[in-house]
Amino acid sequence: MSRVPDSSLAVSLGDPAGIGPEVIAKCWDNRAEFDLPPFVAIGDGRSIAAVWDGPIEVVDDPSQADSAFDYALPLIQVGAAETDVPGHPSVSGAHCSLDSLELAVGLARSGSAAAVVTGPVAKDQLYAIGFHYPGQTEFVAERCGISPSNVVMMLAGPTLRTVPVTTHLSLAAVPGELNSALIEARGRATLRGLQRNFGIPEPRLAISGLNPHAGEGGQLGREEIEIIEPAIAALAAEGWRVTGPHPADTMFHARARANYDAALCMYHDQALIPIKALHFEDAVNLTLGLPIVRTAPDHGTAFDIAGQDRADPRPMAAAIRMAAECAVLRLETA
Amino acid sequence: MSRVPDSSLAVSLGDPAGIGPEVIAKCWDNRAEFDLPPFVAIGDGRSIAAVWDGPIEVVDDPSQADSAFDYALPLIQVGAAETDVPGHPSVSGAHCSLDSLELAVGLARSGSAAAVVTGPVAKDQLYAIGFHYPGQTEFVAERCGISPSNVVMMLAGPTLRTVPVTTHLSLAAVPGELNSALIEARGRATLRGLQRNFGIPEPRLAISGLNPHAGEGGQLGREEIEIIEPAIAALAAEGWRVTGPHPADTMFHARARANYDAALCMYHDQALIPIKALHFEDAVNLTLGLPIVRTAPDHGTAFDIAGQDRADPRPMAAAIRMAAECAVLRLETA
Repeated sequence: MSRVPDSSLAVSLGDPAGIGPEVIAKCWDNRAEFDLPPFVAIGDGRSIAAVWDGPIEVVDDPSQADSAFDYALPLIQVGAAETDVPGHPSVSGAHCSLDSLELAVGLARSGSAAAVVTGPVAKDQLYAIGFHYPGQTEFVAERCGISPSNVVMMLAGPTLRTVPVTTHLSLAAVPGELNSALIEARGRATLRGLQRNFGIPEPRLAISGLNPHAGEGGQLGREEIEIIEPAIAALAAEGWRVTGPHPADTMFHARARANYDAALCMYHDQALIPIKALHFEDAVNLTLGLPIVRTAPDHGTAFDIAGQDRADPRPMAAAIRMAAECAVLRLETA
Repeated sequence: MSRVPDSSLAVSLGDPAGIGPEVIAKCWDNRAEFDLPPFVAIGDGRSIAAVWDGPIEVVDDPSQADSAFDYALPLIQVGAAETDVPGHPSVSGAHCSLDSLELAVGLARSGSAAAVVTGPVAKDQLYAIGFHYPGQTEFVAERCGISPSNVVMMLAGPTLRTVPVTTHLSLAAVPGELNSALIEARGRATLRGLQRNFGIPEPRLAISGLNPHAGEGGQLGREEIEIIEPAIAALAAEGWRVTGPHPADTMFHARARANYDAALCMYHDQALIPIKALHFEDAVNLTLGLPIVRTAPDHGTAFDIAGQDRADPRPMAAAIRMAAECAVLRLETA
């Protein structure tokens, strides 16, 4: 890292039976190659020891992590009631993953940690213990005092950033859910997020159409004319640099990507197909609209390969690196 | 080309005022670099001369093209009533583009040409002269005696081939248009097309879901359970190698692409976003289900840059190369 934040990053292990502990330990192993800043793992040390035989240094606070980071993986211990077996999620592990997440967010909120990186959790297990959020993002938002409807998920890779306007809806429900106010709000949050987290003073936002060929002048759907164009006009009237509605199929080749800093897409797969096609190994999930920096690797617990030394640490490394970069840029532009 | 078909390829110029004449002439200029087999251009030679000062050899038949190809661009002249100006489409040009297309298809149907490659046409102009097909594909199908509903559009690049089940529909209309019989028919045509045009004896087809995460077990839509899974089961019961429904966002990274020969997608942008993100310069539009080989570059007339020497010939070169490769494979497997 050419620039390192003032304090260590807090990295929650996620579900102790998933691949979170393994990829975080591998990140420490490869910290030089991956160009990673100091970070402190937060969770049950036993879940790391079960899959990794490297050195762990238990610390009480991120401030102690910097000096330890050279010779051991710093860890703030969050005990689980039982020892989890990789690949076998449990209620005890779900409690541990939630406690770790809560502590990591608290450390970032208080300024003790520069940013939060969250390991993958098991939603089914969390629901079983009373967790009532769609995912970690909404939990983090609430702990930060922000309405979940005001935070935005960005997928960011080396040559493309995308933001979906709607997320986990059936495709049939997408057209009914879209409206100009929602597109404007997501667009504004994205543009501010580009300024704040990426240090881009005048960010450029490309907004996609919903229909093939962006509706072809109304012949293949009228959402572009009735919903998307008015939202673009409203954002432009506020002085933002926005373009569109663009046909989604011609937005994501190299020459097109050079014309914008982020693409605002109408639905889940429109945003996630291109980012994963182009940047599967290093796409990062970044939450915009929070008072803290929060990133996550864009993969799940992968219980099917947990404990087999097969998990790829590059997505977690990309999430840690981007969290540090955004934390530095926030300090510089604060 | 390591393998060259028995006869030249017929390449229709498309609209004389579009970029078709320019990119076809540039293909001949760069025939060695692009590794192109002999082809004969079909259309109005004046539209080539307007944008290119290389040698043209007017021939009567593709059989004369082979020997001419070394020193000139062979052309079968199809006269237009008026001389078109690049960038300014006309009724006369539309007639010429249609006559050229019809002749090219006839030459391939009779075996005089090894395959047809079609340059981009102006649909608005064609509609004005009474053309009543959605596009060139349907016209070619009918001239071949095939129902347009039985031909399939494939987008093919060096590392990915995709086929959309539905094409030019508003996004809202897609769920209502999908049914198991349609998916089976498109899947079967794709699998046979892979055997016939690409020489793959046991092709592998990956079928996408419609909804985010392929519906997540019914929580984000039931089309996967009710429509797509039965279609996959039916194709598998016929002995085809099919998998899915796959979440569309994780189907298109390099490791996933290695597991299949083509991806069958539920709608236009699901198929076209990944192919254009990955292979914008060399994706080819290939029509499956015809008695002849027909390819096209995946771009339009680009009237805005016609006559400015700015058009990129690589998509046309890829279409010519793929047409030749498919023609050879068809001969070998016939």
